[in-house]
Amino acid sequence: MSKFARPNIRNMDGYSWGEQPEDSDTIKLNTNENPYPPSPAVEAALAGMSTAQLRVYPQPTADALRDRLAALHDVGRDNLVITNGGDEALRLALTTFVSPGACFGMAEPSYSLYPVLAAIHDAEVVRVDLEADWRLPDDSAARFNEAGAQLVCLVNPHAPSGVLSTRAQLQTFAESFNGVLLIDEAYADFVDPGQGYASSGLVEQENVLILKTFSKGYGLAGLRLGYLLGHGELIRTIIEKTRDSYNIDSISQILGCAAIDDQPYARQTWDAVRDARQWLAGQLGQLGLRSSNSQANFLLVEVESGTMTAQDIYLALKKAGILVRYFNSPRLDNKLRITIGTPEQNERLVSALTQLLT
Amino acid sequence: MSKFARPNIRNMDGYSWGEQPEDSDTIKLNTNENPYPPSPAVEAALAGMSTAQLRVYPQPTADALRDRLAALHDVGRDNLVITNGGDEALRLALTTFVSPGACFGMAEPSYSLYPVLAAIHDAEVVRVDLEADWRLPDDSAARFNEAGAQLVCLVNPHAPSGVLSTRAQLQTFAESFNGVLLIDEAYADFVDPGQGYASSGLVEQENVLILKTFSKGYGLAGLRLGYLLGHGELIRTIIEKTRDSYNIDSISQILGCAAIDDQPYARQTWDAVRDARQWLAGQLGQLGLRSSNSQANFLLVEVESGTMTAQDIYLALKKAGILVRYFNSPRLDNKLRITIGTPEQNERLVSALTQLLT
Repeated sequence: MSKFARPNIRNMDGYSWGEQPEDSDTIKLNTNENPYPPSPAVEAALAGMSTAQLRVYPQPTADALRDRLAALHDVGRDNLVITNGGDEALRLALTTFVSPGACFGMAEPSYSLYPVLAAIHDAEVVRVDLEADWRLPDDSAARFNEAGAQLVCLVNPHAPSGVLSTRAQLQTFAESFNGVLLIDEAYADFVDPGQGYASSGLVEQENVLILKTFSKGYGLAGLRLGYLLGHGELIRTIIEKTRDSYNIDSISQILGCAAIDDQPYARQTWDAVRDARQWLAGQLGQLGLRSSNSQANFLLVEVESGTMTAQDIYLALKKAGILVRYFNSPRLDNKLRITIGTPEQNERLVSALTQLLT
Repeated sequence: MSKFARPNIRNMDGYSWGEQPEDSDTIKLNTNENPYPPSPAVEAALAGMSTAQLRVYPQPTADALRDRLAALHDVGRDNLVITNGGDEALRLALTTFVSPGACFGMAEPSYSLYPVLAAIHDAEVVRVDLEADWRLPDDSAARFNEAGAQLVCLVNPHAPSGVLSTRAQLQTFAESFNGVLLIDEAYADFVDPGQGYASSGLVEQENVLILKTFSKGYGLAGLRLGYLLGHGELIRTIIEKTRDSYNIDSISQILGCAAIDDQPYARQTWDAVRDARQWLAGQLGQLGLRSSNSQANFLLVEVESGTMTAQDIYLALKKAGILVRYFNSPRLDNKLRITIGTPEQNERLVSALTQLLT
């Protein structure tokens, strides 16, 4: 590392992204992409674009997209800021609300990017261990307050387990917590409607940000598009001060609008993923790979102690052309996180696992 | 502003971007875009894209584009990191090399985003005033060293004057300076080949980063694509540690490659801008609006004291449907920065100014 780098940068480990194979034969169930491509309306919008409009700078605040999202979530335009994927939203929350040297809070285990972003920012990380059923302990807000956390990120549905907290639980947390609560809803599109989960009303709390992304629900991971919903004062600070001036390119603004406009298509893919999730959880359970009730587009399955460890299975699947995610970390090293694929992909996975485990 | 924001964020002013009118009748000579659209090869690449490839995450390090740029600049892939426009490159340099509370150096006047990014980062800004001819004083590196600057950004050709420093001057600065020198070459594509300016060899210095962008030279401001050339150790720290994990979307990677591949087209637009620059400088000079020898795609013209101030002219041109840039700041408040347009746009500008000033 360069001797010119800040000490905290020199000493930290960077983020390890999931493998991205170039060949198209591999079945990619390792980075939680939507198994379905974006809406045909997005394809039409792309086909209708001319590069001449790329000559000038983009509309700085992506207002057309903000207006559509405001209507979708029944909030105001001022409750929205568009970001380069969810990752930029997380970085902006740290930049805006956490002083370097101060404290950032998270649940453990959780999205492995959180501590990396905190380390870049030179924030101290305080972790609250989740209960055995992946739920947040009741005294979490008090513990984060005691540590002086200025920002807490909670992913809901939880990653990597898929377990959902209720809106009431999050509201109680937000009301008790002294800093900013960011609810990372990267996977919320896949929650069963029967769960009655709806969080956008929480933007009325002065300390709540809700992160959303086009990467999962809208099949647009390659576009890098996400957004924050939140209280107008929190959002305004990000838009007017800490965001890069032209952070969203013109193409993303247009394709994002097209994706949002085709809600029926998006909902159809979410339904398909939910159906496949139920089928796959059942099949894997019969193979002894049990998972909690996931409300996301992945399953965290536990590998019972036996002849093959979770890592063995990960490697064997990789050899068979199927990528899943293995985390070599406490509480996760006996588990695999498996993205829900298309029915065909899921069947190939079950068949490969049946060969390995029976 | 939100009470949850960091004190430095609450107290700073955000960046003021140039006006971006929605109507297409306005002649936009205010934000230094290329007057020519991107290459037809970029249009063909866009037409050849399918949104199906957007379903998955982009190649994390944009290697295809890095390889092309490495060949173009005769450096290694490891000397390159791709960024979301030049703005992200500037932010990453601050994040990686400047400790909050420590010192960031710049020339005054210069790109108005630099102090904004420094304020977000809570870095102290040390400014060295440029000489009357917009050149850096000879003792600049010593003065930045004395202040303890960890990073200095110098834009070359200089903005807003367009004046070019030589490679030898920059090399001398880099050799004397104790921190990282970022040379912001946003406008370097427009330098006259006769100037013999070539800086990419400077990447062999362990403390030099060179910023490049597709926004100006390649007519792709709307795409948000830039890059840093630099010493491998500096670049590696950014790629592996401080960059957002998937910072460049798949479409930008593909369109960027197409733009780089069509060098003849790009060079043709640069030649046209240079010819128009010479013509426009002559015409404006005859109207009493003199400028330094600009090597960029804009002219900084001085308004002689008379009946109309620079601000008056800015407002009158705006009323006539022509936007130029007025900076209400020391040394610039009697000047206008005018982007070089197409011959037709330049003629309309000259005609409007002739009406105003004669």
